Amino acid sequence: MKALRFEDDTLRLSEVAVPGRAGEALVRVRVAGICNTDLEIARGYAGFQGTLGHEFVGVVESAPGDASLEGKRVVGEINAGCGLCELCRAGDPRHCPRRTVLGIVGRDGAFAEYLQLPTSNLLPVPDEVSDERAVFTEPLAAACGITERLHVDEATRVAVVGDGKLGLLCAQALKAMTGARVTLVGKHQSKLDIAARRGVETLTVEETARSLERSFDLCVEASGSERGFETALKLLRARGTLVLKSTFHGATRFNAAPVVVDEISIVGSRCGRFAPALELLAKDAVEVEDMIHADFPLAEGVRALEHAASAGVLKVLLRVSSEQ
Amino acid sequence: MKALRFEDDTLRLSEVAVPGRAGEALVRVRVAGICNTDLEIARGYAGFQGTLGHEFVGVVESAPGDASLEGKRVVGEINAGCGLCELCRAGDPRHCPRRTVLGIVGRDGAFAEYLQLPTSNLLPVPDEVSDERAVFTEPLAAACGITERLHVDEATRVAVVGDGKLGLLCAQALKAMTGARVTLVGKHQSKLDIAARRGVETLTVEETARSLERSFDLCVEASGSERGFETALKLLRARGTLVLKSTFHGATRFNAAPVVVDEISIVGSRCGRFAPALELLAKDAVEVEDMIHADFPLAEGVRALEHAASAGVLKVLLRVSSEQ
Repeated sequence: MKALRFEDDTLRLSEVAVPGRAGEALVRVRVAGICNTDLEIARGYAGFQGTLGHEFVGVVESAPGDASLEGKRVVGEINAGCGLCELCRAGDPRHCPRRTVLGIVGRDGAFAEYLQLPTSNLLPVPDEVSDERAVFTEPLAAACGITERLHVDEATRVAVVGDGKLGLLCAQALKAMTGARVTLVGKHQSKLDIAARRGVETLTVEETARSLERSFDLCVEASGSERGFETALKLLRARGTLVLKSTFHGATRFNAAPVVVDEISIVGSRCGRFAPALELLAKDAVEVEDMIHADFPLAEGVRALEHAASAGVLKVLLRVSSEQ
Repeated sequence: MKALRFEDDTLRLSEVAVPGRAGEALVRVRVAGICNTDLEIARGYAGFQGTLGHEFVGVVESAPGDASLEGKRVVGEINAGCGLCELCRAGDPRHCPRRTVLGIVGRDGAFAEYLQLPTSNLLPVPDEVSDERAVFTEPLAAACGITERLHVDEATRVAVVGDGKLGLLCAQALKAMTGARVTLVGKHQSKLDIAARRGVETLTVEETARSLERSFDLCVEASGSERGFETALKLLRARGTLVLKSTFHGATRFNAAPVVVDEISIVGSRCGRFAPALELLAKDAVEVEDMIHADFPLAEGVRALEHAASAGVLKVLLRVSSEQ
């Protein structure tokens, strides 16, 4: 089968065997999404070698342990745990120290004709959710995951800094899940408008006047830049919480003094559960199609990643298979 | 009266008028303690001009609103709020945006024969607590304040990184208040021994073997160094909490990736309430006298601060008045 792989410091389309690990489900990939993490991997920053990709929707070819899934359209949670440690036994492999992560750590990913995951990682996609929407389940789940890490409700004044893919999803997810008043701070009016259509207030960075400083209970840093981190800190009230969603490459400069003086909490947040994200997609509570800026066939995957890395481009999809 | 003041980029002993603001208590200072924050101010890093000092024990000369305090030996909470904002009305001026802070922000401090504070900031010192112990109330309260910011109990595995004054107090306070198993990580056996006498486990940085990495629920960064910050992050389990107690001067380098991947929380913590600290001192639950490395009369305050800045020196006291 075809697979877009990063090996020997090079991203290339390769011909490899269909994976055949016993005990795991086999999924034929229909559509996959390119995430900034894929771009980091392709730059050699993440130490991963193998098939890229962790955002996908596909059709189950075989699913040991749950035959009812076979032939179903599914998405899949990306962390596969050891199954034996305390965390895995509690049903949450996301921090299993021996976990593999689809297309990120020790496990071939979704930019291929087929992928494997444990059967228990798969969730059927409701018929009303198109492939183009379902492929957003993973990043939307990451956005929803903020509510697993801290309490947010309609009284929480939220700012999301960064109007890229992650910021747009975080702002919409927090608004839709909690009813909080959410403000998205970004640089691009056309991107801000996507969230505005779903009731998110928006501000360009220039409009983030001094009057707004120290007025938010919760800020989500989703820009991946030092400047965004500083902006988020400035917007927070004393004892506010800064959620760190994006992993900047390498070290950033960080001034500890205001964090101590204003008793700020900084909360890291990575993967979320898929079920709440699928629910938001099923009830059309978030805008995702408008974030799709291009699609490419898998065979043009190298070019697709180059395009995804261009300034201003939001989601780029890979079309892998259209068979039913 | 004599006062040790930082003005025009210079620390000097000055002759100034006894303060006489109406509506505030007047306290004759007996003993004051030198904190690293004072050293930062004297280096010009903190933007404060005026009389230094925020750790003290003294005797009340006058206390508008509570005559029962007059003649009593007291300590005093250092934040004085506007009295009008929501925070102040809720009884907690520590984050009042218009607050002054004794010897730190907009208010002359304790390295003087007399100081003023709102009467409501003062707490009588129980007879069984000597001046030499009472003067530790403020920094000990800051250590106790960690428990205001997050839940700690006997099941919490705690590491405190840094065996300076702050680390010694944090380790002992957390042990005494919560019964948690607390490990102090430092570089100096003689300092570690102070906490060890109160049931704190101790490790030198060299002994912090790889086997201990990722094994603590809570780490307190009390070293004020980038290296300490990194050590604390390494010791934390996934979804653990790092408490930031010390404000390093300027920016530190900070790698956001592990905070996001391991979903770490970083919690800033500044001032704590005095009552729990006085209680720990009254029941002799913490070792503080052994942290006193020198004392100087106020008249030798400049030399005292120089000494306090020397490597390896723990608490330096200023003796201001011994009148009853």
